[in-house]
Amino acid sequence: MADTETFPHHIRRLIDGKTKPPGSLGKLEDLAARIAIAQGSATPVMDRAALIIFIADHGIAEAGVSAFPQAVTMQMAHNFLEGGAAATAFARTLDVPVTLVDAGMREPLAHPRLLDRRIGPGTRNFAEGPAMSTEQCEAALKRGLELGRETGCDALCLGEMGIGNSSSATMLAHKLLGLPLGELTGPGAGLDAGGVERKREILSRAAARTAGKLAPVDALAEYGGFEIAMLAGAMLGAAESRRIVLVDGFIATAAALAALQIDPGCRSRLVFSHLGAEPGHALILDALQAEPLLQLGLRLGEGTGALLAWPLLRAAASVLTGMASFEEAGVSGKLT
Amino acid sequence: MADTETFPHHIRRLIDGKTKPPGSLGKLEDLAARIAIAQGSATPVMDRAALIIFIADHGIAEAGVSAFPQAVTMQMAHNFLEGGAAATAFARTLDVPVTLVDAGMREPLAHPRLLDRRIGPGTRNFAEGPAMSTEQCEAALKRGLELGRETGCDALCLGEMGIGNSSSATMLAHKLLGLPLGELTGPGAGLDAGGVERKREILSRAAARTAGKLAPVDALAEYGGFEIAMLAGAMLGAAESRRIVLVDGFIATAAALAALQIDPGCRSRLVFSHLGAEPGHALILDALQAEPLLQLGLRLGEGTGALLAWPLLRAAASVLTGMASFEEAGVSGKLT
Repeated sequence: MADTETFPHHIRRLIDGKTKPPGSLGKLEDLAARIAIAQGSATPVMDRAALIIFIADHGIAEAGVSAFPQAVTMQMAHNFLEGGAAATAFARTLDVPVTLVDAGMREPLAHPRLLDRRIGPGTRNFAEGPAMSTEQCEAALKRGLELGRETGCDALCLGEMGIGNSSSATMLAHKLLGLPLGELTGPGAGLDAGGVERKREILSRAAARTAGKLAPVDALAEYGGFEIAMLAGAMLGAAESRRIVLVDGFIATAAALAALQIDPGCRSRLVFSHLGAEPGHALILDALQAEPLLQLGLRLGEGTGALLAWPLLRAAASVLTGMASFEEAGVSGKLT
Repeated sequence: MADTETFPHHIRRLIDGKTKPPGSLGKLEDLAARIAIAQGSATPVMDRAALIIFIADHGIAEAGVSAFPQAVTMQMAHNFLEGGAAATAFARTLDVPVTLVDAGMREPLAHPRLLDRRIGPGTRNFAEGPAMSTEQCEAALKRGLELGRETGCDALCLGEMGIGNSSSATMLAHKLLGLPLGELTGPGAGLDAGGVERKREILSRAAARTAGKLAPVDALAEYGGFEIAMLAGAMLGAAESRRIVLVDGFIATAAALAALQIDPGCRSRLVFSHLGAEPGHALILDALQAEPLLQLGLRLGEGTGALLAWPLLRAAASVLTGMASFEEAGVSGKLT
């Protein structure tokens, strides 16, 4: 690295010097540079991913905003523990260890492989009042932060499960960015057109409880979920410890939005893994000027999209660590 | 499987019954169905990928159609053998074995890990006459077919290297589909605007040697490359043995076009891994009504895009083999 050169410029020059036409690896070249800069190393390590799935219940589910009954949250917790869910199946194909966290389901569940970080027995119905207290929100952020900081990995995939949580994510996008609920509200796990209309009316009434836009912790407390606040905290903790965070779908992206408003400095560590089918997802990504890596029509959450992007991070790092330069390989450059 | 049900319908029903909202895994659900149907199994195996890189020289390179000197073909062959190229770096991150095949470089290269399937010392300059004889073309198809049939794997990634081969691929798209050279011709490995204009003129004159559209073997012989004909053969051989083929970028997609015209029956085995930056790639994919899995702005070839799509195949298969059904997991379905 020449004395007069900045580190990002040095990394760009290294990538351009690898045996391929400059720019010919597209988004992977940007990703390689981001990884190197995050780790402060020209030979970044991208060996271990981990997935944390935060699970919680939502009082707003009582209002009839979801296509699935609230009991599905707990049923899916069992399914994750048994390895039968999409995220756990995908994680096995990628050798990525999965940590399941009870952020606050309606009922506790004693299981040796379920991490108890419960804030409460689900949030309150935010149509009627705040989903949680400020103290609960801060506790959720803190527990997330600790997990993000302590989970051993080079890249942290973050996912969630909680019936009703697309309503929370929609409200966060509305209250943090000022985007209109009419455009943000979507089918979540599978509402029909009538169901989406009903959800939009319920969310509009809930939005009227608080005037205009809100600060991030206030928005999380008023309309968030325990798993969403914990996701935001985990992003902050992982970013702080210079890990790359693979942000999953709509819900995780809403959590990222809150995290970014709490600490804009985490931006360079967040990789938006995919564009989901929920309409609000594209709107938040646009507002963040974030280009997602994958467009596969996913709309499941759980960290499925984050997992699918993990091999792209490994490949990107290998541009710096596995490829020869034109000079090393004795390959001729472009004709002038 | 109910007696009255077709196998594809049975598979669709199994996928819909897995613990996720129906359709919520987007393109991966279609991929899961295609894999199952290709293998004729509701529990498809997707454990082993392999990459074959076919390398050859092109007489048309003499005409000045490439941003890189022709010597780069051989230099890159050494780089692949040393593991310093992008495809070999990516393959290591994915534990995918790589086979390097000399399909016809200008000079032979004796190396224990280079498979000699040479058809000749590079093709002839197709601006002046046919690139190869019909016999050479048939030999290349046959050698490719044997490799596609015999390479042990569940999914075969196919890549290529050969200075000048984007000109061959452009001519194949033109002569097999009738697409205009004005729209097809692009920068390849990195021509500037003036270079693209010159390439377009050279290709237009070469196209005038033969009237109108051509049959696939004729088009390959007139304008193809040894590595492109071998790629087409490998696709046919892999498809015949019920393997999934991960088709790489522009060059491999042109080879797939020829393979599909030789045997349309291979269509269901071909997965188009990504949309490359070369303008002709999108045009061929559109003509084939093929939806590529990834859009990462790649324009390198070598099988890089095919490799990056491999983990998606593994995840897709795991929908059928790793996920529980609503019934098995005791998860409630949608509210009605």
